[in-house]
Amino acid sequence: MSELEALLSADARNFRPSAIRALSKLINDPSIISFAGGVPNPETFPAEDLLICAEKVLREKRSVSLQYGPTLGLFRLRESVAAICRDRSIDAGGEQVLITTGSQQALNLVAQTMLDPGDVVLVELPTYIGGASSFHARRADLIGVEQDDAGIDPASLRKVAEDLVSSGRRVKFLYTIPNFQNPSGRLMVAERREAVLAIATEFDFLILEDDPYGELVYIEGLDTTPIKALDRSGRVIYLGSFSKVLAPGLRCGWILADSAMLRQFELAKEAADLCSGMLDQSIVDEFCAAGKLNAQIARVREFYRDRRGAMIAELALSFAGIAHWTDATGGLFTFVTMHEAVDTAALIEGAVGMGVAYVPGSAFFVDGSGANTMRLTFAKEGDERMREGLARLKRFFENLEHG
Amino acid sequence: MSELEALLSADARNFRPSAIRALSKLINDPSIISFAGGVPNPETFPAEDLLICAEKVLREKRSVSLQYGPTLGLFRLRESVAAICRDRSIDAGGEQVLITTGSQQALNLVAQTMLDPGDVVLVELPTYIGGASSFHARRADLIGVEQDDAGIDPASLRKVAEDLVSSGRRVKFLYTIPNFQNPSGRLMVAERREAVLAIATEFDFLILEDDPYGELVYIEGLDTTPIKALDRSGRVIYLGSFSKVLAPGLRCGWILADSAMLRQFELAKEAADLCSGMLDQSIVDEFCAAGKLNAQIARVREFYRDRRGAMIAELALSFAGIAHWTDATGGLFTFVTMHEAVDTAALIEGAVGMGVAYVPGSAFFVDGSGANTMRLTFAKEGDERMREGLARLKRFFENLEHG
Repeated sequence: MSELEALLSADARNFRPSAIRALSKLINDPSIISFAGGVPNPETFPAEDLLICAEKVLREKRSVSLQYGPTLGLFRLRESVAAICRDRSIDAGGEQVLITTGSQQALNLVAQTMLDPGDVVLVELPTYIGGASSFHARRADLIGVEQDDAGIDPASLRKVAEDLVSSGRRVKFLYTIPNFQNPSGRLMVAERREAVLAIATEFDFLILEDDPYGELVYIEGLDTTPIKALDRSGRVIYLGSFSKVLAPGLRCGWILADSAMLRQFELAKEAADLCSGMLDQSIVDEFCAAGKLNAQIARVREFYRDRRGAMIAELALSFAGIAHWTDATGGLFTFVTMHEAVDTAALIEGAVGMGVAYVPGSAFFVDGSGANTMRLTFAKEGDERMREGLARLKRFFENLEHG
Repeated sequence: MSELEALLSADARNFRPSAIRALSKLINDPSIISFAGGVPNPETFPAEDLLICAEKVLREKRSVSLQYGPTLGLFRLRESVAAICRDRSIDAGGEQVLITTGSQQALNLVAQTMLDPGDVVLVELPTYIGGASSFHARRADLIGVEQDDAGIDPASLRKVAEDLVSSGRRVKFLYTIPNFQNPSGRLMVAERREAVLAIATEFDFLILEDDPYGELVYIEGLDTTPIKALDRSGRVIYLGSFSKVLAPGLRCGWILADSAMLRQFELAKEAADLCSGMLDQSIVDEFCAAGKLNAQIARVREFYRDRRGAMIAELALSFAGIAHWTDATGGLFTFVTMHEAVDTAALIEGAVGMGVAYVPGSAFFVDGSGANTMRLTFAKEGDERMREGLARLKRFFENLEHG
């Protein structure tokens, strides 16, 4: 038979395994104190409430919850999602919502619908690996835009867009996570959001706004209003998810977009999986309809707020002068930048040998930079292990200097 | 802003809405007696048993059933799927199994991994629309192969392959549903399966074997052994699903393939949705591990066996001499061929006006033929409504002749 390589599509030859998912073995070894995870803490999952919902939909709605469903998703859940979006100041109706098999599918459907090989996608430096992998799978050309602690740098965005125009190329869309970005933990400030939308309008490209962390906010008074709330022309495709506030195992995310565009995503989804899991959708729908979501979000915030506070305080005690870290006022991550000579990817095995794990940051940068960065999550480890883990990490880096 | 059309990928411009899913409004109107559905009967869904499984996995395995999971799927479920495959005479291990978000995702992952624009996919005449839509979404060239009531006609397959070779083109794979095909209801006989594999070997193309209906068999002694069981070289990619024996709302299917190929599908799936729903997988896993699957399959068979028998008997009473229909010794469908002058697509509105619905067959033929065919399911309507529906259908066609 032919060699496998000869059978693969050109796209498949460009598939890239996630560096993060490859790390999962380290994350699951209990002897390692792990800041490497990217997943919510299972203690935040409202299992008993979900069971009550499951019981109800399996007993009373069997012919819906266990059957094939509409490609766009369960109607009442789409309405609930629209209401959630309206709470975030977005002018949304249920007819603009497509339920997806998690946010990752949303990224993939947008990529399939919008990207031809060689198309330009602008991404943040650093950016989310799952987004990048969906764009790479379409052989798009990913070009990085600088961020600082206030979010995307508009000057960098403008320069990249201008350079592309002057070389005759066109940007298809900018992919951004304005709220507590994965991996950087940064919150883009409001004036930057306005500037980004203005540049997108001027250069006529779309914005793919991914907002899985917007509800995980730990400081009062922060402005997390999505860019989508400012959008008057249907330029922004807005992605959301129940993964971080309910549970990712339910694979329930959404796309909110202009109706004509949504119709295209619907066709892509029909080919992708016909419809998302109807039991999952029914359970989430029941959870929302029973009015339980806001109390759950409050519980999740409270759970992570203390952990985040403890980690940031510990970093200030132990790493001041050695590293810079982001404030992580929401989300699940802080992003640490070490001295320029440090190569976190080369050192990860050594750190694991010391019983502590992080995610090397370079995998998140499409321009090859970021060798001296790492992502730490405060979602997994409790207070004591967190302190011990950071102490190990500090010792590890100190030994390097003196070794 | 740019016109939407200008933003779409070339693939997206080739997306095709399913003619079947567009019919769903008719299927759900209770005043219409519908043979148009393609979905299992909810009465076959073991809701109470699934609830017991849900309770167990939500209470005892929260950190697995509600969390992100491995892209390949839950380990024990993959082992159970391998055991199911071994029961079907396939030499399979769990490491060759990838759990998918329903069989549709399996079709889509194979298409993304294997197909470039213009690649040739051979499909049966008629073929399953969901498969075709995944291949169209990659802009593949779908070429039809003749079937008769014993399955694919090897002479037709050989001729098509030879013609392609002589015009310098290569076949990537043949897509086939040997067991009780959707839409034709046909069972491919064993010697045809051997002949098809021999031709695939001779012309060096892959076989994508889709087997969602193999367990739904209503006559003793039929040979449903998959082509995959004959495969010694990894040429056959075998797809299965729990949708028809458990419930499609759980979105749980699988790909069984050669390990190197499976690794490519895993990368495609990572970009597609990271992992399939973990609650769904955990429930199905628990159901299998509790040893409940075989009894459930027996119940499902019994449920459809009577309905299928009654419909075939009624067709013999009322449609003898007017139409040909397939035997439907398994699966959910019989496929009816009317007089050559009949155009079922043009007539569907009239039939619905008479209170009865079917699926016009032409949508299933990639060569534009099949105008005089239609697909009928015996899954939905009980005895009385089935008889009344077929009586309406007969009157409708008689009125046409005399009208």
